[in-house]
Amino acid sequence: MSRFVERVIAIEDAVKLMALKSRIELEEVEVGIDSAHGLVSSRRVEAPYDMPPYNRSAVDGYAVRAEDTYGASPTNPVELVVIGSIDASTPPSRVPTLRPGEAVEVATGAPIPRGANAVVMHEDVIEMGGKILVQRSVPAWGNVSRAGEDFRKGDTVVERGTVLMPWHIAVLAAFGFQRVAVFRRLRVCVLATGSEVQEPREPKPPTHGVYNSTVRIVLGALSPHRFLEPRYLGLVPDEPEAMRKQLIRGVREGCDILITTGGTGVSAGDVVPRVVSEIGELVVRGLAMRPGRPTSGGVIEGRPVFMLSGFPVAALVAMEVYVLPTIFKILGAEPPPKPQVRARLTRRVANVAGYRSFVRVRVSRCGDELCAEPLRLTGSGILSTLIRGNGVLVVPEDVEGYEEGEEVEVLLLGPIYKG
Amino acid sequence: MSRFVERVIAIEDAVKLMALKSRIELEEVEVGIDSAHGLVSSRRVEAPYDMPPYNRSAVDGYAVRAEDTYGASPTNPVELVVIGSIDASTPPSRVPTLRPGEAVEVATGAPIPRGANAVVMHEDVIEMGGKILVQRSVPAWGNVSRAGEDFRKGDTVVERGTVLMPWHIAVLAAFGFQRVAVFRRLRVCVLATGSEVQEPREPKPPTHGVYNSTVRIVLGALSPHRFLEPRYLGLVPDEPEAMRKQLIRGVREGCDILITTGGTGVSAGDVVPRVVSEIGELVVRGLAMRPGRPTSGGVIEGRPVFMLSGFPVAALVAMEVYVLPTIFKILGAEPPPKPQVRARLTRRVANVAGYRSFVRVRVSRCGDELCAEPLRLTGSGILSTLIRGNGVLVVPEDVEGYEEGEEVEVLLLGPIYKG
Repeated sequence: MSRFVERVIAIEDAVKLMALKSRIELEEVEVGIDSAHGLVSSRRVEAPYDMPPYNRSAVDGYAVRAEDTYGASPTNPVELVVIGSIDASTPPSRVPTLRPGEAVEVATGAPIPRGANAVVMHEDVIEMGGKILVQRSVPAWGNVSRAGEDFRKGDTVVERGTVLMPWHIAVLAAFGFQRVAVFRRLRVCVLATGSEVQEPREPKPPTHGVYNSTVRIVLGALSPHRFLEPRYLGLVPDEPEAMRKQLIRGVREGCDILITTGGTGVSAGDVVPRVVSEIGELVVRGLAMRPGRPTSGGVIEGRPVFMLSGFPVAALVAMEVYVLPTIFKILGAEPPPKPQVRARLTRRVANVAGYRSFVRVRVSRCGDELCAEPLRLTGSGILSTLIRGNGVLVVPEDVEGYEEGEEVEVLLLGPIYKG
Repeated sequence: MSRFVERVIAIEDAVKLMALKSRIELEEVEVGIDSAHGLVSSRRVEAPYDMPPYNRSAVDGYAVRAEDTYGASPTNPVELVVIGSIDASTPPSRVPTLRPGEAVEVATGAPIPRGANAVVMHEDVIEMGGKILVQRSVPAWGNVSRAGEDFRKGDTVVERGTVLMPWHIAVLAAFGFQRVAVFRRLRVCVLATGSEVQEPREPKPPTHGVYNSTVRIVLGALSPHRFLEPRYLGLVPDEPEAMRKQLIRGVREGCDILITTGGTGVSAGDVVPRVVSEIGELVVRGLAMRPGRPTSGGVIEGRPVFMLSGFPVAALVAMEVYVLPTIFKILGAEPPPKPQVRARLTRRVANVAGYRSFVRVRVSRCGDELCAEPLRLTGSGILSTLIRGNGVLVVPEDVEGYEEGEEVEVLLLGPIYKG
């Protein structure tokens, strides 16, 4: 087993390099707004007209001329004649014009009649069949949503590269858009490697080796992102020829991005990085992170190939800090925020200089604050800490460790334990 | 327009009441583990056997009897005869038995041979064709992952009511499970009401009223939850007869949960709550929250019916604090954590006693910390604050307000602005 020279680099540099080397075609497609949730906008959308398009009542009440109400009080009310009643569904053509001394009953959202410039609320008038007694004055434009106060024509509604959230879709709908331009979904193909790995079949110990679990971490980490289309290509033996064939097939059959699990370490003979360096370009060979140091990256015909460790925790961390950030960068999109909490460490945590460590912790309530208990581990292959832990403590490269009792920032992966 | 008496109740009480009154049938189905991501487990899964099932090497090196290495040092190495080489894919039947003075080369994950009780790492030996010189002693069980150290047979792998995350699926796979029992997906039907509402058609001002945007907030808030199956039933006019028909049709056609938008307020004549009280039971009539006070709830034939305001921000907040928490409670599941940050308020925020206020804010970096700027609003119908804001400040019932410069907790909805 000869050994590749590792040139460990910082995670951020790996993300930049991989995004830089990628040549994925980002095609634009139009989709109906109700199918657009979670996709990435491919162009800036601007407000096609003022919003609201006309002055609208912000309350239920009576549209009036503000001047008519000046000086009104309960002891000295102003009498106005009600000449009509309109609501939000009244077409502008059927809205009456107001003259001095008149009022029009309006529902929230109704257009403000010509001649009116304010709305008095129901609770500030006494209604008396065809007339109202206004008991309180209203300033000009009081209780009116003015044309363009929400959006001016030309304002940005959605930036290019936005992961479309419910409120983006809602605002597009509010302007009348039926469709929106987005990047087509990127096909992410996942290959598992390892001659010691078998697909799960029944809940009994495997006849040899281990069941293939890490690939599920990768597929699961992809699945919340609707702009990606994960596809599992199956298990490949630790043999260069088999690996070469599968990678080339993946590229030919429309994979935009490839992810492999396993076969990056010394004991696996570095099969995947070697093959990638032969049929493409090896870009990243080792990351300054623990666990996951052998994590690598390359490109084949412009398609990024992310090579992850076969250990589940290492693969999980690499997906969150390396693979997904690279994909967001390629799309020019900002990743959504992640849940983080501040918690007090219940035990000391050490770090190796120059590496960013990701330590699984169990976050629980203790009194008024949160506690984070680092989970003991003998290797990144330990699965139970994934289930028993609900967070990850990130220890930066320049921090030697954290002391017991220190307050630290924890990435929260699951619900906080009660105690 | 006669007025329903509102009995505003606390959000938590509304969640409890709605969950209590619901009679949804939670059927159990078995799905392949690769389709189970985001579904809710319907029963506890326990470890079917010890994990690891046998003692395994945690490193690449040589399996030895620890006793044979005691006292070994670079100046006084211990010589052992290498009788074989095995890796993680070697079946237990082909693993040799070790006698004193012997070693077996092992890869990470390989079974520990009978007779051996420790592993010395490659870097601590000198290899010399068929023999090794051990330069450092190893304690008993050093570098060995012992049988059952990760999970003991019978340990909990997945609790009932767990939203299955990548790591749960990975651990199920690691034990060999091909399938997992989950609750079938719940069909959530969404109805929009309002005679003033039109479906979006083209990016031009509507001929009258407004385009239907709020329903997109509701559909979007449902969509990340894979255990739900959202279905849009369309627009219903503000007429009791039409509303009655649609609600009954929804229940007959297999909706487990119904959500309506609009038609809860006074100006809409309380159409939806009235109809629900006639054909089912009105459970919640008004929530102690702002915006969204008219938010209501009821049940029809055991199906919860959530009645949300037609205002987008009110509907968004109600989805997050009322509808989704009730659904999680019905399933006996814990909601996933939400991103929250602490930020400094740039302007005073007032509250109405007894109400929980949800104030849209814009969170950005300012120096070393985060700032939260409350967005001006003239009503919960204002859409631009949804786009320009990226967070929601929650002001509890017993807080009169927050001062400028105070540090507050903000629910983060989108990426933090640079400055």
